[in-house]
Amino acid sequence: MPLENANIDLKHKEKMKKIQIVKAKILAGKTVEKGLVIVHTGAGKGKTTAALGMAIRMIGHGMKVSIIQFIKGAMDTGEQAVFDAFPDLVEMRPMGEGFTWDTQDRAADIANVRAAWEVCKSRIMDPEWKMVICDELNIALRYDYLPLEEVLEVLANKPEDTHVVITGRNAREELIAVADLVTEMSLVKHPFRSGVKAQAGVEF
Amino acid sequence: MPLENANIDLKHKEKMKKIQIVKAKILAGKTVEKGLVIVHTGAGKGKTTAALGMAIRMIGHGMKVSIIQFIKGAMDTGEQAVFDAFPDLVEMRPMGEGFTWDTQDRAADIANVRAAWEVCKSRIMDPEWKMVICDELNIALRYDYLPLEEVLEVLANKPEDTHVVITGRNAREELIAVADLVTEMSLVKHPFRSGVKAQAGVEF
Repeated sequence: MPLENANIDLKHKEKMKKIQIVKAKILAGKTVEKGLVIVHTGAGKGKTTAALGMAIRMIGHGMKVSIIQFIKGAMDTGEQAVFDAFPDLVEMRPMGEGFTWDTQDRAADIANVRAAWEVCKSRIMDPEWKMVICDELNIALRYDYLPLEEVLEVLANKPEDTHVVITGRNAREELIAVADLVTEMSLVKHPFRSGVKAQAGVEF
Repeated sequence: MPLENANIDLKHKEKMKKIQIVKAKILAGKTVEKGLVIVHTGAGKGKTTAALGMAIRMIGHGMKVSIIQFIKGAMDTGEQAVFDAFPDLVEMRPMGEGFTWDTQDRAADIANVRAAWEVCKSRIMDPEWKMVICDELNIALRYDYLPLEEVLEVLANKPEDTHVVITGRNAREELIAVADLVTEMSLVKHPFRSGVKAQAGVEF
């Protein structure tokens, strides 16, 4: 090995040793295990998809997940086909009827949101379910189709070790305030702009 | 129903009808199906998790996915347990040995990156694999552990219908320039700051 490279490698090793000590110290301070309130918001993609990724991790660890979808109606998705292999560990319930511009029926939209929320609430309060994903709930809250206070109250009283994941654009400030983990997905570049349609495996 | 509510509902219906027409027109222009170059970057969570969500969708549609991990070494993850149920459709290969501050061996890190990239390349160029996830490749590119030009060349020559997903912070500008779909995950709030440790189901 040339002397110059050997020097780079040696300096690298010393620097990394120092970083390792700092990282170990930080890690040692992280001892709490608890159910989290997790929010995925922003105009970018990946909000629901990352929630599905967590669902898969829960299933793999043998913990039960309930996925309640506020906007989506029943359709053939790839995730459903995989979940079907684990009927005792996961349920995915599409309880919407599509976007507001497709239903064109505000009263029916509000009734659907109410029905979906009642299921979320029962799943969250039942300690058997270790993660409840309220998919697109933020949309319902934004349009006041459901009182925010009801959601905050359930979150405040959820079982200690239950994770609740709430997705959708425009998360309400009050929700962010009570959440443990909030990620914003932003759009840097989107293929729909160049005429690409929603594709199996990527979007559904 | 009170008259006021009936009016709100009627106005809502008319507005939604107009939106539906606009949305339908936009959708009609989206006819292209093709394999995408997808980048998940940013300092927030959800980059790998959203890639796993897409992997699940691919599997559910019966399309083969290869997941090559540049940083992670073998560990018991929830996702692996689920993937084990679909051995003909998915492989997950942890080809790293941990973070640079744990390995403390720059030459070995570079060799691991090279080995992982060779597998990525072979999977991308083999049309049997419909999605290849290069997990944390951005990190390797950022530290110049792998020449960016090699990656760009493979992406330029990949089979037409193969999706390539590249995750990791600090995506290089040149990569973003050639990507079809780029999402930035930003941290709004993180529970690690309040002493919560990485938990099964959420982080692994």
